[in-house]
Amino acid sequence: MGRSMARHLMAAGHPLVVYTRTRAKAEELVAAGARWAGTPGEAAAEAGVVITMVGYPHDVEQVYGNPDGIFETARPGTLLIDMTTSSPALARALHTEAKSRGLAMLDAPVSGGDIGAREARLSIMVGGDPEDFARAMPIFEKMGKTIVHQGPAGSGQYCKLCNQIAIAGGMLAVCESLAFATKMGLNPSTVLESITGGAAGSWGLSNLAPRVIRGDYSPGFFVKHFVKDMRIAIESARHSGLHLPGLELAERLYARLIAEGGENFGTQALYKLYEAHPRNPEGR
Amino acid sequence: MGRSMARHLMAAGHPLVVYTRTRAKAEELVAAGARWAGTPGEAAAEAGVVITMVGYPHDVEQVYGNPDGIFETARPGTLLIDMTTSSPALARALHTEAKSRGLAMLDAPVSGGDIGAREARLSIMVGGDPEDFARAMPIFEKMGKTIVHQGPAGSGQYCKLCNQIAIAGGMLAVCESLAFATKMGLNPSTVLESITGGAAGSWGLSNLAPRVIRGDYSPGFFVKHFVKDMRIAIESARHSGLHLPGLELAERLYARLIAEGGENFGTQALYKLYEAHPRNPEGR
Repeated sequence: MGRSMARHLMAAGHPLVVYTRTRAKAEELVAAGARWAGTPGEAAAEAGVVITMVGYPHDVEQVYGNPDGIFETARPGTLLIDMTTSSPALARALHTEAKSRGLAMLDAPVSGGDIGAREARLSIMVGGDPEDFARAMPIFEKMGKTIVHQGPAGSGQYCKLCNQIAIAGGMLAVCESLAFATKMGLNPSTVLESITGGAAGSWGLSNLAPRVIRGDYSPGFFVKHFVKDMRIAIESARHSGLHLPGLELAERLYARLIAEGGENFGTQALYKLYEAHPRNPEGR
Repeated sequence: MGRSMARHLMAAGHPLVVYTRTRAKAEELVAAGARWAGTPGEAAAEAGVVITMVGYPHDVEQVYGNPDGIFETARPGTLLIDMTTSSPALARALHTEAKSRGLAMLDAPVSGGDIGAREARLSIMVGGDPEDFARAMPIFEKMGKTIVHQGPAGSGQYCKLCNQIAIAGGMLAVCESLAFATKMGLNPSTVLESITGGAAGSWGLSNLAPRVIRGDYSPGFFVKHFVKDMRIAIESARHSGLHLPGLELAERLYARLIAEGGENFGTQALYKLYEAHPRNPEGR
């Protein structure tokens, strides 16, 4: 996703300095005129705006906090934007640290996937100070279509977790409906004709159910990343005294899917559990 | 729903004989020219096609099987269509009984609700013999838009249960996402702006989440009817060696909602549990 997003920024005339752990991933951008940096800190040293998009909260911490990281080199006034789906608590901590160094910081995770990134149609969910959001808007507009300020630091992450929580229930909906259809001897494609257009309808039913029926479990969105997000959501919720049994059930099911080797499938592979263990998908 | 559906049939020129337990519900149709019958059997006696839509499987059994029911009076060759959301096993049993009496029978539950019925845009999910489906098609076309033959007797009911299973997961998705948004201090309406258009999107998120935010728990679709449907689905699934933990979780939550007085709310009232018992919505 980062590559597509960076390409839109270059196309809009922004000079880019890029760093990735795997340099090969940046070759295309470098060939198109981006300058390569050897460390995150080097990439940030002369930038007016720094955008990060990495894997896990741990990676975010390192990219900002390591001795060769962004905080060490960013000049006062620089606007830092973390677009990783990460922990709200970490987003708040980084915001505080950034402020204490005279930097501005936003958390701005996205949804829309590879296609949304390629077509600059991402939904960008933003947490941070309103004036920083306003400052970032011209940049966000190059990458996304639905760009919403959700509140103070961490709120972008909370909103993205709302998105993931809704997807978790949606995947239960899709997979259990298909498992039932198949078990009862119906043709699941014919069932979709009847139910996709009504109150049972969802993005997942329209887009992922047909993949399940074809036996296509390729990602889309990786199971391993989805589990990361669900765990952050569960932890954040519990910390605030909220228990979300549907989300927790989905996390248990996906954890079993990973235990059975499914971490690099797409989220629709949840269906495999119902196929392999119809009497006990949870494995309890 | 029955009243709207009957009105479309009258408008298309079909002479109607009507029976309802609560006569007042039929007054409008009688005023418009339908003939009133004192019992289901009386209504069926001279009909070429009989359509039933009642509350629970138990009601379906009575309407067909009672001494004053449809089976006693229907002339050989009559086409019987049960449009109640009911048990697939009962649908198969009634189909067998109908056949043995020289009658034809379809199970044809619908989705689309009051609005779908008023606007003749229902999805009609049909189980039974293909030639009976073909015979019923001109009638279905007066009431619905998506009309699909799902397979032999019972298949219409199975398909409707697939619809309800998908809705169950969808309601977990909507309510847990909103509960999280609110608990984390976000504005849930602002969250919907960010997430409704993407992979988290669903009919429920677009149509029911805004109602939850307004505190509008009026039905739409009654909690008590939804629980009936979920229980039929759970029982059918178990009977075939399939365990659907998401559906079973939803059923437990809705059962608690009923225990707390929520049976006549709309399905979106599931949210109330997360509001009233954030630490333990399941009550376990």
